[in-house]
Amino acid sequence: MSDGMVVGLDVGGTSTRATVVSLDGVRLGTGRGGGGNPTSHGAERAAEQLRVALTGALAGLDPELVRAGTIGLAGAGRLLADPAGRAAFDRAWHDVGLRCRYEIFGDALVAYASGTAEPDGTILIAGTGAIAAEVRGMALDRVADGHGWLLGDAGGGFWLGREAVRRTLADLDRHQPPGPLGTLVLTELLGSAEIAARPRDTVDTLVQAVTRRPAVELAALAPLVIRADREGDPEAGAILAEAARLLAANVDRIRPADSASPIVLGGGLLTGDTPLADAVRPALAARWPAAPLHGAGDGALGAAWLAARTLPELTDPAELHRRLLSPIES
Amino acid sequence: MSDGMVVGLDVGGTSTRATVVSLDGVRLGTGRGGGGNPTSHGAERAAEQLRVALTGALAGLDPELVRAGTIGLAGAGRLLADPAGRAAFDRAWHDVGLRCRYEIFGDALVAYASGTAEPDGTILIAGTGAIAAEVRGMALDRVADGHGWLLGDAGGGFWLGREAVRRTLADLDRHQPPGPLGTLVLTELLGSAEIAARPRDTVDTLVQAVTRRPAVELAALAPLVIRADREGDPEAGAILAEAARLLAANVDRIRPADSASPIVLGGGLLTGDTPLADAVRPALAARWPAAPLHGAGDGALGAAWLAARTLPELTDPAELHRRLLSPIES
Repeated sequence: MSDGMVVGLDVGGTSTRATVVSLDGVRLGTGRGGGGNPTSHGAERAAEQLRVALTGALAGLDPELVRAGTIGLAGAGRLLADPAGRAAFDRAWHDVGLRCRYEIFGDALVAYASGTAEPDGTILIAGTGAIAAEVRGMALDRVADGHGWLLGDAGGGFWLGREAVRRTLADLDRHQPPGPLGTLVLTELLGSAEIAARPRDTVDTLVQAVTRRPAVELAALAPLVIRADREGDPEAGAILAEAARLLAANVDRIRPADSASPIVLGGGLLTGDTPLADAVRPALAARWPAAPLHGAGDGALGAAWLAARTLPELTDPAELHRRLLSPIES
Repeated sequence: MSDGMVVGLDVGGTSTRATVVSLDGVRLGTGRGGGGNPTSHGAERAAEQLRVALTGALAGLDPELVRAGTIGLAGAGRLLADPAGRAAFDRAWHDVGLRCRYEIFGDALVAYASGTAEPDGTILIAGTGAIAAEVRGMALDRVADGHGWLLGDAGGGFWLGREAVRRTLADLDRHQPPGPLGTLVLTELLGSAEIAARPRDTVDTLVQAVTRRPAVELAALAPLVIRADREGDPEAGAILAEAARLLAANVDRIRPADSASPIVLGGGLLTGDTPLADAVRPALAARWPAAPLHGAGDGALGAAWLAARTLPELTDPAELHRRLLSPIES
């Protein structure tokens, strides 16, 4: 069994990561390419990064021994509906010598699988955007939010950054001096936290500084909220508490009230001991006291595990998940 | 005194309206031009519409008898800071034979003056956007919101339209059939209120229908909220109640708690017996029980009154305001 291998890929906007693992849980190779999201980069460019990452991961290995592969990416549905994009991915797959089948899943399912081997549960993601989804039989079922920054993604990075600016503007309207968060926002966007003699002039300058850039860049201000919260700013704490409330409410839209299935927290704002994860966990535990809460793990390993779990020669998928993805006890 | 005249102009995004009135309160002429906002149309185009509206209003009158004029427009500050734009306005003024001085004021001050002659008070406007301002000595003082749709304008038309879509999306996420408001939103944006077998497909289609148009067009959905509220939809009522709460909170940022000065309600969503005005009035009355609440009147008449009130030959500005702008008793 140890000569059986699987490949997992985590295709993101800034990098493409590939991992080859054996069916008994040994990591055999990893590779990395540039940003490969076909929605933002085009399928041909994405397929090229796939090729780069796979070539690195398969170095010194026999690709014909790979039994299955999984590619996780945002906007998987759009790629699956695009024959030319699918063909480009097929070519990259075969060019590196892989002969096995592969499946394409959304990043939400791969994030879920990186956190638990249970086939039924919930994934909650907060990165730039925010989305929650029910998983049934290790497939996405009902989905909540993920509606994009204009209409939703409540509690995600864009939302946090916009709230930081909104609260700064509200303080200026009230002629109140900016607190720690407002000082960070003004310094970041205007180069100085100095307020004009007419505070409305600073308001106008701040609004213009935001609106002349692409709106989604507001997400770049999310780290300022986290920094101000760490420095004890109650305004930043209130924004994070509201974000946690919105994220929990989002889960509430799709998850049964009495469910005891696991909840996986993923995305840059919720993976690890982030302040937002610290605020979300008690809100989820209050509503679903029996639900185990897990952090998402390495996406490429989660994808590799998804590829392995359906192989008939794998006798204990849960044990492989533990070997690949359980946090190491220290 | 009856041969003394003043001119008032209300320059908006869709029309430019001019009025000539005598100092004893007789309306002598009106004229109308196309949209003339210099920010959206350019100062030359705006000045041309000014000329059209003034020519109509002055027909049969001697422009040399006009003693003063006032132009009210959104973004007045930007025009005042633009010498070429000012010069274009000056040329239009002189081309129609006017020899008197004129002043340019923001639309918020003109809306305030159309509702009351009191020099100190508050103006609250909800149109596509939302803004509140304190008026002192008939000049704008502190301002709250008006930050634009991306960062603010909370409780205005854009905000109402976006909330209508957000609540529709939330119902779809919950697999709940859309209520009256959701049905109107789906029919308006997708041509049908039918939900796909996978409701997420309708979610995706709805999000795409909104995001492929300019964001500000969400304001066009505000009338659907008002219509659904009139039909008794509690979801639409909840949106209007929240909008009223946000608008009142916005006034609270700038208006002293114990003030007894008047509050004027302006903008398309608050002028007259609109559902939003019905929701805002009790919220304002609860916080400022001694404050008279007035509706904004005709903007061009408000501008004409602002022009007249500083003339030494006008002995009773309050009386002129009553004649020009008090609602006719029926």
